[in-house]
Amino acid sequence: MDRFSFNQATAKYWPLTDVVDGCVAEGVRNVGLWREPVAEYGLRRAAAMVREAGLTVTSLCRGGFFGADDWLDDNRRAIEECAVLGAPALVLVCGGLAGRTLAEARDRVAAGLAALAPYAEAADVTLAVEPMHPMFAADRSVVATLAGALELCAPYPASVVGVALDTYHVWWDEAVLPLIAANGERIACFQLADWVLPLPADVLVGRGLPGTGHVDFGQFIKAVDAAGYTGPIEVEVFDANLWSRPGAEVLRETIAAYRSVMSSASPQSAGQAVR
Amino acid sequence: MDRFSFNQATAKYWPLTDVVDGCVAEGVRNVGLWREPVAEYGLRRAAAMVREAGLTVTSLCRGGFFGADDWLDDNRRAIEECAVLGAPALVLVCGGLAGRTLAEARDRVAAGLAALAPYAEAADVTLAVEPMHPMFAADRSVVATLAGALELCAPYPASVVGVALDTYHVWWDEAVLPLIAANGERIACFQLADWVLPLPADVLVGRGLPGTGHVDFGQFIKAVDAAGYTGPIEVEVFDANLWSRPGAEVLRETIAAYRSVMSSASPQSAGQAVR
Repeated sequence: MDRFSFNQATAKYWPLTDVVDGCVAEGVRNVGLWREPVAEYGLRRAAAMVREAGLTVTSLCRGGFFGADDWLDDNRRAIEECAVLGAPALVLVCGGLAGRTLAEARDRVAAGLAALAPYAEAADVTLAVEPMHPMFAADRSVVATLAGALELCAPYPASVVGVALDTYHVWWDEAVLPLIAANGERIACFQLADWVLPLPADVLVGRGLPGTGHVDFGQFIKAVDAAGYTGPIEVEVFDANLWSRPGAEVLRETIAAYRSVMSSASPQSAGQAVR
Repeated sequence: MDRFSFNQATAKYWPLTDVVDGCVAEGVRNVGLWREPVAEYGLRRAAAMVREAGLTVTSLCRGGFFGADDWLDDNRRAIEECAVLGAPALVLVCGGLAGRTLAEARDRVAAGLAALAPYAEAADVTLAVEPMHPMFAADRSVVATLAGALELCAPYPASVVGVALDTYHVWWDEAVLPLIAANGERIACFQLADWVLPLPADVLVGRGLPGTGHVDFGQFIKAVDAAGYTGPIEVEVFDANLWSRPGAEVLRETIAAYRSVMSSASPQSAGQAVR
């Protein structure tokens, strides 16, 4: 459980104070936070509360959206927020086409990273480029594969620009396991969520707790371990059904799901089919 | 218009006889057919009707689904149907996980191709592996990228196993244009459909006529041309809205959409942004 991190988006409407109290009550040591609820509570106040509760912030979501008018100021603020919270990684959702071709939009992401890298380095924050599922390529992230994310990272040290690896977004890609094996040092954030079918009307909020869908978590966790990643493992699930339920219940269910998929990746289960 | 092919799935509920008459009336020379409506009308009767109308069948959909119990018999029948119709390519939707890991499911596809290749070669039919959008990876096709499809083709001559390249499924992939450039001879079927947002509740039937969404058709058509592909260009659009309208109207609209995107790829428009 030392590596488990509860991303607050999994219980989206649970107030930040309750998230913190709930994590302490369940023996959870790490949380992934989002900018909006942190800002609502107050950045410095939130940082103090989390620290006093003995929790570590593993990531902050999210920067990116390099097509927005105020992208530079907004991302610089996000980096500063990470520094205040002690979050080592800022997750970047890089933005969609916004009228550009795919190549142009990707160039814009590269230019955005070039502009942000010095600020990130100075603040000791890693920009974590998140490859998102290709069904979001037009409107959320033209970075749709781990290969594409790694290409964007290449000009920078891994401490400055890395990737946010979310099983939900990359599980379908036959290239992903070898890429993980060759690029363990680039993993700045590792998140678990499951691919469940049918997709709901709003595909953004139809993810599942680990173990409820089609992702082979055992294989993923082993690959990330073998690549040398020893950092936190967040569970971050966008699921309208989970969001309608009491946060404490969601947290307990998330812990149980985490434990179950972690045990499927343990040495004892090596060689067994995970599902 | 010589290369345009009307895939009958674009007007799913239009009877086959009307599809043929409609194409003749509009000066369309090629059609892409589906097995179910052909079987309903009668295979040999359909082949004769299409031939007598002066139409060429550019592809038959679909084989694949290598997880099904009767996959071998069913795919052998599909190859024979291609031969009777004179369809040069059998489009393969390779099937989802069906309880297997991604790697296991892909191995099953490879084994299926190995079993079918001799029959395809004997019948002078190309098996056209269709990389499908990753949102279908769990339930329809573990072949989710052009790279993955090309890997499956590699053991065979291009005349025996190639790819069905549908813009809807691959547009988001930054690797796709260089792969097309290097593998023109593998394109056994080229289909156009657009990525439109928002995705509908049933994501299978939310595609758009070329030009109505986010795909950069000019770039695709130029890339496929430059790779040396000179075959037919099908428009195949799964859209519940189109399907509710009169077939003749859908056909005319499809022709107009095709003309519009083809002109965006003409030498005159080279260097211009397509959208």
